[in-house]
Amino acid sequence: MSNSIGTQFVVTSFGESHGRCVGVVIDGCPAGLPIGLDEIQAEVDRRKPQSSAGGTGRREEDRVEALSGIFNGRSTGAPICLLAWNKDADSSAYKDIISTPRPGHADYTAFLKYGKYNDFRGGGRFSGRITAGFVMAGAIARKLLALRGIEIIAHTVQIGDIKADPHPSHITRLNIDKNPVRCADPAAAKKMMAVIKAVQKEADSIGGTVEALALNVPGGLGEPVFDTLEGELSRAFFAIPAARGVEFGAGFSAASMKGSQHNDLFSVKNKRIVTLTNHAGGVSGGLSNGMPIIARIVFKPTASIGKSQKTVSLKTGRTVDLSIKGRHDSCIVPRAVPVVEAMMSLVLCDFALRAGHIGRIIS
Amino acid sequence: MSNSIGTQFVVTSFGESHGRCVGVVIDGCPAGLPIGLDEIQAEVDRRKPQSSAGGTGRREEDRVEALSGIFNGRSTGAPICLLAWNKDADSSAYKDIISTPRPGHADYTAFLKYGKYNDFRGGGRFSGRITAGFVMAGAIARKLLALRGIEIIAHTVQIGDIKADPHPSHITRLNIDKNPVRCADPAAAKKMMAVIKAVQKEADSIGGTVEALALNVPGGLGEPVFDTLEGELSRAFFAIPAARGVEFGAGFSAASMKGSQHNDLFSVKNKRIVTLTNHAGGVSGGLSNGMPIIARIVFKPTASIGKSQKTVSLKTGRTVDLSIKGRHDSCIVPRAVPVVEAMMSLVLCDFALRAGHIGRIIS
Amino acid sequence: MSNSIGTQFVVTSFGESHGRCVGVVIDGCPAGLPIGLDEIQAEVDRRKPQSSAGGTGRREEDRVEALSGIFNGRSTGAPICLLAWNKDADSSAYKDIISTPRPGHADYTAFLKYGKYNDFRGGGRFSGRITAGFVMAGAIARKLLALRGIEIIAHTVQIGDIKADPHPSHITRLNIDKNPVRCADPAAAKKMMAVIKAVQKEADSIGGTVEALALNVPGGLGEPVFDTLEGELSRAFFAIPAARGVEFGAGFSAASMKGSQHNDLFSVKNKRIVTLTNHAGGVSGGLSNGMPIIARIVFKPTASIGKSQKTVSLKTGRTVDLSIKGRHDSCIVPRAVPVVEAMMSLVLCDFALRAGHIGRIIS
Amino acid sequence: MSNSIGTQFVVTSFGESHGRCVGVVIDGCPAGLPIGLDEIQAEVDRRKPQSSAGGTGRREEDRVEALSGIFNGRSTGAPICLLAWNKDADSSAYKDIISTPRPGHADYTAFLKYGKYNDFRGGGRFSGRITAGFVMAGAIARKLLALRGIEIIAHTVQIGDIKADPHPSHITRLNIDKNPVRCADPAAAKKMMAVIKAVQKEADSIGGTVEALALNVPGGLGEPVFDTLEGELSRAFFAIPAARGVEFGAGFSAASMKGSQHNDLFSVKNKRIVTLTNHAGGVSGGLSNGMPIIARIVFKPTASIGKSQKTVSLKTGRTVDLSIKGRHDSCIVPRAVPVVEAMMSLVLCDFALRAGHIGRIIS
Repeated sequence: MSNSIGTQFVVTSFGESHGRCVGVVIDGCPAGLPIGLDEIQAEVDRRKPQSSAGGTGRREEDRVEALSGIFNGRSTGAPICLLAWNKDADSSAYKDIISTPRPGHADYTAFLKYGKYNDFRGGGRFSGRITAGFVMAGAIARKLLALRGIEIIAHTVQIGDIKADPHPSHITRLNIDKNPVRCADPAAAKKMMAVIKAVQKEADSIGGTVEALALNVPGGLGEPVFDTLEGELSRAFFAIPAARGVEFGAGFSAASMKGSQHNDLFSVKNKRIVTLTNHAGGVSGGLSNGMPIIARIVFKPTASIGKSQKTVSLKTGRTVDLSIKGRHDSCIVPRAVPVVEAMMSLVLCDFALRAGHIGRIIS
Repeated sequence: MSNSIGTQFVVTSFGESHGRCVGVVIDGCPAGLPIGLDEIQAEVDRRKPQSSAGGTGRREEDRVEALSGIFNGRSTGAPICLLAWNKDADSSAYKDIISTPRPGHADYTAFLKYGKYNDFRGGGRFSGRITAGFVMAGAIARKLLALRGIEIIAHTVQIGDIKADPHPSHITRLNIDKNPVRCADPAAAKKMMAVIKAVQKEADSIGGTVEALALNVPGGLGEPVFDTLEGELSRAFFAIPAARGVEFGAGFSAASMKGSQHNDLFSVKNKRIVTLTNHAGGVSGGLSNGMPIIARIVFKPTASIGKSQKTVSLKTGRTVDLSIKGRHDSCIVPRAVPVVEAMMSLVLCDFALRAGHIGRIIS
Repeated sequence: MSNSIGTQFVVTSFGESHGRCVGVVIDGCPAGLPIGLDEIQAEVDRRKPQSSAGGTGRREEDRVEALSGIFNGRSTGAPICLLAWNKDADSSAYKDIISTPRPGHADYTAFLKYGKYNDFRGGGRFSGRITAGFVMAGAIARKLLALRGIEIIAHTVQIGDIKADPHPSHITRLNIDKNPVRCADPAAAKKMMAVIKAVQKEADSIGGTVEALALNVPGGLGEPVFDTLEGELSRAFFAIPAARGVEFGAGFSAASMKGSQHNDLFSVKNKRIVTLTNHAGGVSGGLSNGMPIIARIVFKPTASIGKSQKTVSLKTGRTVDLSIKGRHDSCIVPRAVPVVEAMMSLVLCDFALRAGHIGRIIS
Repeated sequence: MSNSIGTQFVVTSFGESHGRCVGVVIDGCPAGLPIGLDEIQAEVDRRKPQSSAGGTGRREEDRVEALSGIFNGRSTGAPICLLAWNKDADSSAYKDIISTPRPGHADYTAFLKYGKYNDFRGGGRFSGRITAGFVMAGAIARKLLALRGIEIIAHTVQIGDIKADPHPSHITRLNIDKNPVRCADPAAAKKMMAVIKAVQKEADSIGGTVEALALNVPGGLGEPVFDTLEGELSRAFFAIPAARGVEFGAGFSAASMKGSQHNDLFSVKNKRIVTLTNHAGGVSGGLSNGMPIIARIVFKPTASIGKSQKTVSLKTGRTVDLSIKGRHDSCIVPRAVPVVEAMMSLVLCDFALRAGHIGRIIS
């Protein structure tokens, strides 16, 4: 079950970077949801490399097909299989990987786990390409959440040393998609693009941070004590290759805060109970409190770099120099933005179904 | 299933802060493991408030009892039920909570989820007291891991603005338990104690960070693409009340790193493949790589503070002042250390069973 | 997870026949359900040996205690731990079992699975005593089902060669509990009692069949294609020791039927769509169709008999004669009736929750 | 998750009778297993209608394709997606089904569950066609079981009133595939074929029973108390459309047996402990005992018959006459034989993995 996520909205991932396709089976989508492939396609297109800065030279059409579960334009209640065929895979650069694991990559750990049988071409199951399937599933989850007014939005908040400081009202999809780093702060976006260009020139790569928001989330989502909102979201975010940390609300800065600073005081606004601050990031006791859910996910710099690096030959056991060819992202962060949105959508959709906020038939 | 964690080593939590007991049922412990209650008790005693700085005034004996699954001093393969009876619960301070939720607490979200039926006394299921059960289960997981030489160790690395910088060789249980903040850096420990004393005087509280290490972990633990080591560990850590963020290896600092800096180069040491640095925190592609697993978990300051705070009366809908009585920790971090160890033990034990590193009968 | 059943109403079983207790943890009971221990006790008392014919001489008080999850007489939404302490366990007769497995018992297979660490006393986890916990959980499921008007009823339909032919209107709990074989056909009941007496005299045992009915079940319960009503019910029934077969509606007699005989024709009655016959046993395509669900479960004769039998000594590898002492049921069927009801209740309650027929808060 | 089965060898089903395809995703297949599509194809071909008596006129090529998880002819450890495209679907006969549910079919219950959004064409998800995917997955499970010498075999033992009484040594695949009813008793096979012909002439259908055997099963498979061998096998068998009952060993005949008759006495043969009889059907206490596992599954007569039947129009609420067109099996039993084998293979493979009998890498 390690390739499935969710309890009521269950997504099973299959496919490899250089295999025939990448896809998902979605089990648990209520019947009656209108599903247009164009809507799914629009989400998948957002993670295509050409749509953002720092992306790989690989050019996949990523045309989404539905194999099951949709009839007369609506979900039937049956499993929905979606996939995109791989067309531009070029495995020529990968023949040496099996014996000389790339530093920072999963080549070595995949070898430890699956032996010589691992499909190493293009990173196989460990490639970011797998996330195309996550985004297909996320597009459907997003539609279900929208039925209850819940909106998910992610944006780049840091690349290298450049941190964004967007005005909250500027954090809209429209603004975010205006620049190829998907940053809601235009001034910072420019600097981020410069950072990416600089590392590209050095045949190097750079890390960054994405912030994810969920708006209009009803209170009480989450299932203590182990299926907390934070725990399930983190588990989903860590399925995105290169994620190294997740924090909510004040996050790591809470270490140096006092209770009197961190506690969000309750108040009443428009007859609704709200908190005056949101250090909790919308989650208390593992449950949503009605305020925006705020998570930040850090991504390490892409492991594949052109610079020469030391590795060990699994054949000879000796240290060798490796200079990675192939087509790679120099900064994965802008492309991670739609994937982060997808994972957040999947998790919240699952919780909304568990809590009964979405029925079994949409009419 | 939200009160169960694990797939092959499954821990189900039950009990409340001021109910009759806190306990766990452990399903999946191999048969034949020698289990002494004294060993479990020793772990549970480490999280008792009197054993660390900043702890509550509540004095529970936390005497562990085994109700099932152990026969002639060994596990039988049947579910192991362990519990401790609550004896020093004093619910007198909690009668107002149901109508005036405490800022920073789960009172309000629990009300949103369970309505007026939530057992609010002492925080009920949302109390840190629940983690006594986690530690009982963790003690058994730790024993199973020790069969394969795997060792788990956690220590305080930050309280307030004070950060520890321990020499790696000093990070031993012996050193950590030498001071009541469980910090492996004695100089920092002193300052941390001073910080805690200061916030206690102010009737306030303070946050902090715990680092967890797993040593001698075999390569290939973890089950991609969704049951990653990082994802499952995070899910477990977020079941600890007050956890707000989790990072691995370089963590959030990876945002400003280049690939050439972050990538851990492979080398050979004692005929074993190792990495020269450990920015990955021992995990690559969601799988252990044989290097120490390193996670850091941040805990927010305890929500219960004596200082007066604004909240809203659920009865009247009006803002009221709340000054929290009851017995509370001023800093949860030192007591979280053994709980972090327990959660890491549970997750790694589950993965070790999944990978076949631990058999179904121990002999 | 093999000691847990259910997806949303999850019951985890623990305890052994001659250990300290038998119990369950129930995870997923909605908040707000009024729960009186006396109601649970009444169900548990029905499976006590003294309440039915053919029962063991062991006399357990089976006093149900609640350890968690209930506050002010109502469920809180937290896990409910229920147990009964073992008091009349007499392990003296079991010391030889470990080396001379009893024919028809799980002694040998438990040894194959758990080795010498199995708690063999009184059958340990394989004892019918474990089902006391199932009945505790079933009592709560029954209450939840009753909120939607769903009623569960089981009765003995065969013991040895004696088959009952009760008038449908006589199949009521009141009638069933009128005789110690729990048969709704008084004439057959008398003959069944005579059969049991006869085998008791011979130091032998006898098998039988229980029929289970679920009335007023809403249509559409069940989750194809694998979580069918029949499949989940069967899985639950086979957790009752000695169950050897399960059939629905026409069951095995359908092998010799034609489609024109077996098909239940649709009609309209009181403005509701009904079927004129119920060969389907209320289940079509794995889903309830609104007609009564009808299942029959066959139980083999109790394995423990006084008659001398051949077995093999695990010590010497030689055939030996075994004459079983200890206190045993000569016919398990009457005592299985409340257990069958419990299992059916658990499964239907889980499906009702999955389909949204029961909310997360009962008010 | 209702379209997934298994805990470590997890099969997720997708596709519809008249959709684009039927397929499966298999998660948990160890790496390194040699997989030839021809082997899978051979199993799938056995369930094609033209290969057995009583089959539908629909002619699907059922060409199996692998979309993922196989590289260089071996499993990689990644999810294996297998499917066959639907080519001969003719939905013209189904346009009225949505408003006039066919007696004995899932049309009505599917409507109750999914409303008007159910893909009713050809029975959609409730069609026997879905089992083509089960057989694909079963083919891989069978190969894994063969690595441990475990063999699965099923055969028809009853059609209508005709019961087979094959000599045990005749129950081989070779013999079973010699006749189109898949019966190991040639004399009975002839009579069964005559029965099928007769009902075909009457535009009617007939039921029957399949027996499934698992040979060379190691002792101790099964995971009490809820994941019993019988329970998990039954759950899998009930996913086959038209299954109405499952029994093991003596099964329903155990109701009239005494313990002294039913108990299988232990003996020693070739230095192995065996039982002299096998009334237990190879399962005791939910665990395999090393003797052949024997299950029997009864299938009702196909619901689709040409004879006119009464049903109710969902539009008008009035009784109408229905005469089913389309292409249907008159007896599903012979085609169910390979599906029963597949389901038994899936379940035993899962248990073998759980017990560690099959490693994570096949080399």
